[in-house]
Amino acid sequence: MRIWNGRIELETRGHADVLDLTAEVERLVAGWGIGSGQGTLFVPGSTAGLTTVEFEPGVVQDLRELLERLAPGGAAYHHDAAWGDGNGHAHLRAALIGPNLGFLVRDGRLVRGTWQQFVLCDFDNRPRRRRVLVQAIGTGHPEP
Amino acid sequence: MRIWNGRIELETRGHADVLDLTAEVERLVAGWGIGSGQGTLFVPGSTAGLTTVEFEPGVVQDLRELLERLAPGGAAYHHDAAWGDGNGHAHLRAALIGPNLGFLVRDGRLVRGTWQQFVLCDFDNRPRRRRVLVQAIGTGHPEP
Amino acid sequence: MRIWNGRIELETRGHADVLDLTAEVERLVAGWGIGSGQGTLFVPGSTAGLTTVEFEPGVVQDLRELLERLAPGGAAYHHDAAWGDGNGHAHLRAALIGPNLGFLVRDGRLVRGTWQQFVLCDFDNRPRRRRVLVQAIGTGHPEP
Repeated sequence: MRIWNGRIELETRGHADVLDLTAEVERLVAGWGIGSGQGTLFVPGSTAGLTTVEFEPGVVQDLRELLERLAPGGAAYHHDAAWGDGNGHAHLRAALIGPNLGFLVRDGRLVRGTWQQFVLCDFDNRPRRRRVLVQAIGTGHPEP
Repeated sequence: MRIWNGRIELETRGHADVLDLTAEVERLVAGWGIGSGQGTLFVPGSTAGLTTVEFEPGVVQDLRELLERLAPGGAAYHHDAAWGDGNGHAHLRAALIGPNLGFLVRDGRLVRGTWQQFVLCDFDNRPRRRRVLVQAIGTGHPEP
Repeated sequence: MRIWNGRIELETRGHADVLDLTAEVERLVAGWGIGSGQGTLFVPGSTAGLTTVEFEPGVVQDLRELLERLAPGGAAYHHDAAWGDGNGHAHLRAALIGPNLGFLVRDGRLVRGTWQQFVLCDFDNRPRRRRVLVQAIGTGHPEP
């Protein structure tokens, strides 16, 4: 059993920017030579989240519009009244989506659907530099 | 420390079908003989999700109605306009609920509340055959 | 590679009480001496959830108001009609937020943003005693 650590660094545009992390996660998994294992993606910060979607422009736009309905930008938030950040909606969206995503590796491959991508959603109200930390625990490939 | 891999295969009815996975997960955990460990359930695909609920008909129906309010079937989605799938709402619901669920095993037992079940929600607009992949890492039972 | 088990016990006020678990999780991680590892927080029960937020009164109040909009207390729920519990809304909120939270430890420290706290949300309609189970798998610190 081994442990592997990596990170993905991204420049986002904020404002519910949705970025596809799949290729980077698969590159890490392949480079580490995991046979079978489980891992966690975690994004530090309270205005971003991680989930999976079919990463095509229609779904991405639908997701942005859903979150705009659930927690509209420009509504009255206690956070903004107290701190003047103007990103109260971003905090709510991030809490709903969650900062972590668990993943599995089986037979040397990241488990996912063909049209299922791992994405970072940056809900903040400005461009951000983000780090997504990636860790996996498992056995090497080929398995003993 | 060991690693165990399993899978649960299900036929769903789609349309926000909610299926109880608890007995299958507990059967896997018991069969593997885990003493203490942590695991991940992951459903490949972008129109299904995993969470926990009290699996009784009232909560299940309430959950289906909540998701119908948040992302109504039959509303106008960019995904449907582009691809004609008619399941744009399913993609949104799945992204909210998330494709993964972490679990713990302590003293040889799956950690959960008495009235807390592990469920798969299939939001797609047709019956589907689904695989839920299950992996755990931990120590054998009884612990050394 | 090692495995560590802990628990956090809390008295909540229910009614969407939001409690900061960060100091307790960091105390556990430091006490275990983890160098690099991943863990899971899991709350047994179907009316509570775990996520991260900036734990300041404004965000906490905004989150409570968001969940009141999404699944209002006092609305008509099938669960309440069948069981008379009056906490149908709590079940829905818990299913949305989810009962588990994955975390990472790197270089002996819990990975999180400066203003990002790990929180338990208790949505039940009465004060509750809650247990949050914490488990981590990883290597000791300093790493070999």
